[in-house]
Amino acid sequence: MRTEFHDTLESLVTDLAEMCDRASAMMRSATTALLDADLAQAEHLRVALAELSALGTGVHDRAYHLLALQAPVARDLRTVVSALHIGADADRMGALASHVARTAVRRFPERAVPDEVADLFTEMGSTAVQLAADARDAVADRDAALAERICAGDERMDELHRQLFVRVVGPRWRHGPMGAADVVLLGRFHERFADHAVEIARRVYFQATGAQLGAQPVGL
Amino acid sequence: MRTEFHDTLESLVTDLAEMCDRASAMMRSATTALLDADLAQAEHLRVALAELSALGTGVHDRAYHLLALQAPVARDLRTVVSALHIGADADRMGALASHVARTAVRRFPERAVPDEVADLFTEMGSTAVQLAADARDAVADRDAALAERICAGDERMDELHRQLFVRVVGPRWRHGPMGAADVVLLGRFHERFADHAVEIARRVYFQATGAQLGAQPVGL
Repeated sequence: MRTEFHDTLESLVTDLAEMCDRASAMMRSATTALLDADLAQAEHLRVALAELSALGTGVHDRAYHLLALQAPVARDLRTVVSALHIGADADRMGALASHVARTAVRRFPERAVPDEVADLFTEMGSTAVQLAADARDAVADRDAALAERICAGDERMDELHRQLFVRVVGPRWRHGPMGAADVVLLGRFHERFADHAVEIARRVYFQATGAQLGAQPVGL
Repeated sequence: MRTEFHDTLESLVTDLAEMCDRASAMMRSATTALLDADLAQAEHLRVALAELSALGTGVHDRAYHLLALQAPVARDLRTVVSALHIGADADRMGALASHVARTAVRRFPERAVPDEVADLFTEMGSTAVQLAADARDAVADRDAALAERICAGDERMDELHRQLFVRVVGPRWRHGPMGAADVVLLGRFHERFADHAVEIARRVYFQATGAQLGAQPVGL
């Protein structure tokens, strides 16, 4: 019974790591869709999101049944409760990557991201992809030290987001209100994607140590 | 022991309803801050968010201890697991109301919302306030029928959000990229606030009936 319990617990961790991995891959595809106006990537993301959500539903249902049938305590309980939250965060990251790709589709054949801010979106994309990949490793290895580094790495995304605003409202912006609306929302999607990776890192830290990592990110 | 258990369970529901009530009040204050460029409301929200988050932490800790010490099953387990999620949603709604108020502060003494879209933000604000108030009632009364109505009511917010885009990218927009960036993000904060109210309604429905309400809102 206990062995079956730990097998199920282990399968939760494996699936959560897989979800982070897929969220990372989805953001990579979304960045390609956005910067190369690549519709095939955008179509691929629609399928990928459905698969990610199905994984998330499976994680939620198994976590729920573990609570109902096994009444885990201590570290095992932390793992199960964290799984409920991490699954929701990873699912949301996939949805945000899809939002990015859909913006690319809406503007096709034009590119939603003008040249003046392409460098920022290249870096926002790669930062987001890396944060999700790190979240994957932190989840898979229950790595509290990596979880701490992820929380620190989020600052780069905030800085890129600030630079984006400066360019959009600056005197050299030639893409009018529509271009501004697009890139500001795209920036927001990237920022929120990074926030969820940080949330996952906080859950991993709690799961591994039983302590909260730093203060709550109130108002993020 | 069981009586103490049910008292704690009841206190969770009371506090979650209180959190929704506060999120609703916060969005009302944020709308005033936004439409009247009222800095006092914005300052008030900073304190209100800290109080809301403290309530949320209390709910999370008590839910966690119920799982660890009482091993609830069936409907009680659904209530405790839902509490973990509803607390997080209500906390996020408060954060989004604060985002709205902070935009008002950043543009003070000017008003962040130009006259051309003031009517939309008046209605987005009141729609958001009402959705949170309805979520409060649904939580407090475990009202599955009201939960269903909340999910339907969210469509109005989506429609307002679409109208906002049409005006911002239309030929009569006179507020440039900066004005566009502000109102598009403000629209997004309102839309996400409504999404979280709907998420709470879904949790209430699940808690009351054991069934999922409609399809998952994938990609919202």
